[in-house]
Amino acid sequence: MRNFEFYNPVKISFGKGQIAKLSSLIPSDANVLLTYGGGSIKSNGIYDQVMNALKGYNISEFSGIEANPHYETLMKAVDLVKDKKIDFLLAVGGGSVLDGTKFIAAAALYEGSDPWDLLLHRRTVKASNAIPLGTVLTLPATGSEMNGTAVVTRWETKDKMAFDSVHVMPKFSILDPEVVFSLPVRQVSNGIVDAYIHVMEQYLTYPVNAPVQDRFAESLLLTLIEEGPKVLANRSDYDAASNLMWAATMALNGLIGVGVPQDWASHMIGHELTAFCGLDHGQSLCVVLPGIMHLKRRNKEEKLLQYGQRVWNITEGATDEKIDVIIEKTVNFFESVGVKTKLADYGVGVEIIPRIIDRFKTRGITAIGERGDLTLEEIGKVLELRLK
Amino acid sequence: MRNFEFYNPVKISFGKGQIAKLSSLIPSDANVLLTYGGGSIKSNGIYDQVMNALKGYNISEFSGIEANPHYETLMKAVDLVKDKKIDFLLAVGGGSVLDGTKFIAAAALYEGSDPWDLLLHRRTVKASNAIPLGTVLTLPATGSEMNGTAVVTRWETKDKMAFDSVHVMPKFSILDPEVVFSLPVRQVSNGIVDAYIHVMEQYLTYPVNAPVQDRFAESLLLTLIEEGPKVLANRSDYDAASNLMWAATMALNGLIGVGVPQDWASHMIGHELTAFCGLDHGQSLCVVLPGIMHLKRRNKEEKLLQYGQRVWNITEGATDEKIDVIIEKTVNFFESVGVKTKLADYGVGVEIIPRIIDRFKTRGITAIGERGDLTLEEIGKVLELRLK
Repeated sequence: MRNFEFYNPVKISFGKGQIAKLSSLIPSDANVLLTYGGGSIKSNGIYDQVMNALKGYNISEFSGIEANPHYETLMKAVDLVKDKKIDFLLAVGGGSVLDGTKFIAAAALYEGSDPWDLLLHRRTVKASNAIPLGTVLTLPATGSEMNGTAVVTRWETKDKMAFDSVHVMPKFSILDPEVVFSLPVRQVSNGIVDAYIHVMEQYLTYPVNAPVQDRFAESLLLTLIEEGPKVLANRSDYDAASNLMWAATMALNGLIGVGVPQDWASHMIGHELTAFCGLDHGQSLCVVLPGIMHLKRRNKEEKLLQYGQRVWNITEGATDEKIDVIIEKTVNFFESVGVKTKLADYGVGVEIIPRIIDRFKTRGITAIGERGDLTLEEIGKVLELRLK
Repeated sequence: MRNFEFYNPVKISFGKGQIAKLSSLIPSDANVLLTYGGGSIKSNGIYDQVMNALKGYNISEFSGIEANPHYETLMKAVDLVKDKKIDFLLAVGGGSVLDGTKFIAAAALYEGSDPWDLLLHRRTVKASNAIPLGTVLTLPATGSEMNGTAVVTRWETKDKMAFDSVHVMPKFSILDPEVVFSLPVRQVSNGIVDAYIHVMEQYLTYPVNAPVQDRFAESLLLTLIEEGPKVLANRSDYDAASNLMWAATMALNGLIGVGVPQDWASHMIGHELTAFCGLDHGQSLCVVLPGIMHLKRRNKEEKLLQYGQRVWNITEGATDEKIDVIIEKTVNFFESVGVKTKLADYGVGVEIIPRIIDRFKTRGITAIGERGDLTLEEIGKVLELRLK
């Protein structure tokens, strides 16, 4: 195991009825900006629950944060924060609203000329340069509720980029699994695979003798395989919704990634598919990951076989036969929870490949992956493998 | 899964050479009290590492915190804290030093007449009533480095009691696995079983459909079974020491216990064996737990069988036959890492049973366990089962 630091001071309130606790979590004299998305929280009752819990608070609102939140949209919220002298942000939504609100938190107090530099140049956020924020999660998927990472898209240039700071970690996150009951099926499907691939990116690399991290990761994969389909089959299954939600949070709160190599190649390539072609984040990951598993099977051989044995019970056959079955099992799981895994399924053809490679080139990136050896040429091959 | 709150803001610095980071973790103008035990940190070099890292700091020292730290000893440290106007505590040691220092942190600013009430009456600690503390862990075992719990013994009355507060959680804990290299075998053995039984107390109850928590718990048990013997076999095996250390921390940082029933009966009975008869904490747990597994096998049947299957691969036979084998496997594991499991092994006879039952009676306790149905009579039976 490698040396590491772990620090996660997010307070989690998990379960039914937890939204009512908001007033114990936000200072009563706070000047709050409530941020949310397209308004589904008004039809499913969550908006009313939040407003009831915060009676007597000074609350402004900013709605319309879209999926893959746009820098252009978020900068309007930044203006509002400055105008209204907001000193607490409450994000009510899924990963996009939460990520967007983290950006607002840092951008509103950014001292440089353009807050986009937080992402482009990975500028450090100081403690005094972030507005405190809390979240009410409405969609189990991204893990944003318990980490300091945010991904933002600059619509104008189709740049989808990430930044990370302990100072934009939520002070608290409320996780009420009942929010799952009213979610569109597509969002549940995307949530299951998003969490699954978050685990895989921290797990499917090479062994460094870290059995706690490995087994925790496998625990989450097994839980997602078991509970995801239950949530889809019965949307009012509270237990299954709870287990999906907690697994998705654990998948990206830093715990399973401490002291081990990580490979965020599927995310890096997937982000481009989302930015250029509009694939949902989860969809983009399900397209890319199987290609990487196939192409980098020698790099990842030991962990692929461990994954196959412990998660899919695959123990028979020659190494490459086993790996083929392991990839097939993984793809079948994604498809079984309703997420297509080929570019053709999304109407994307071979022409996307040079555009994505050019994008990496433009950013000065020549290779990615846990060993830094997935070259631009290989990124092209990965995508070729996933055409149809 | 039940509703829960989870909040663990302890910053972990894990790995070789992390002690050198102390000066980035403690405010440079702090008036520090270094607390430690019998002085082994002077012979193994940790004291020097700490002092080198803190050159230029204003440091006082309090040594002599014993195993099962005594209220009487700790109150002397409280006097020192007040005299010297200490505003930061640095605990360098194992669970006893860490627990003792948490008590010092709260007792020094306690507003009532007797800080023992923190334990006896489980008084709440306010944020402003605890001196901040950090730790350098020298013994993987208790998990005290990443939680807010402390167990203190009043020597005069042989009362061993616990208190808990988020405000005595360490601001940081430094976990350098190399400290394991020079530990006495008995301390390593006790650490392995202590961590193991911490997991069991949060796991071996009844199912509430919490697969993440269950699998995380099983992950830790499997890791302790695998890595514990490696540490004993080769004390300079850094990887094994790392894995033992991280598993022990994860075993009691709250994570595996969220949203599930817990059973601290082995600890409650074990504390009396330590207080009356001087058994090490780990020894006392290894005596008691198998008795509870045997006697409460109907209460715990589903989780016993799950534990047997997933941890020990026991799948054949009638239910009670399997449970007998599962208990035997567990006992054999404790013995294999060097911890005896019968009262006779420690020279304790049947006469202890009424004393322990009387102690519970005096405290107004009539039954314990996850269902509150392990009666005083049954506590007696558990101990009878463990005589020889």
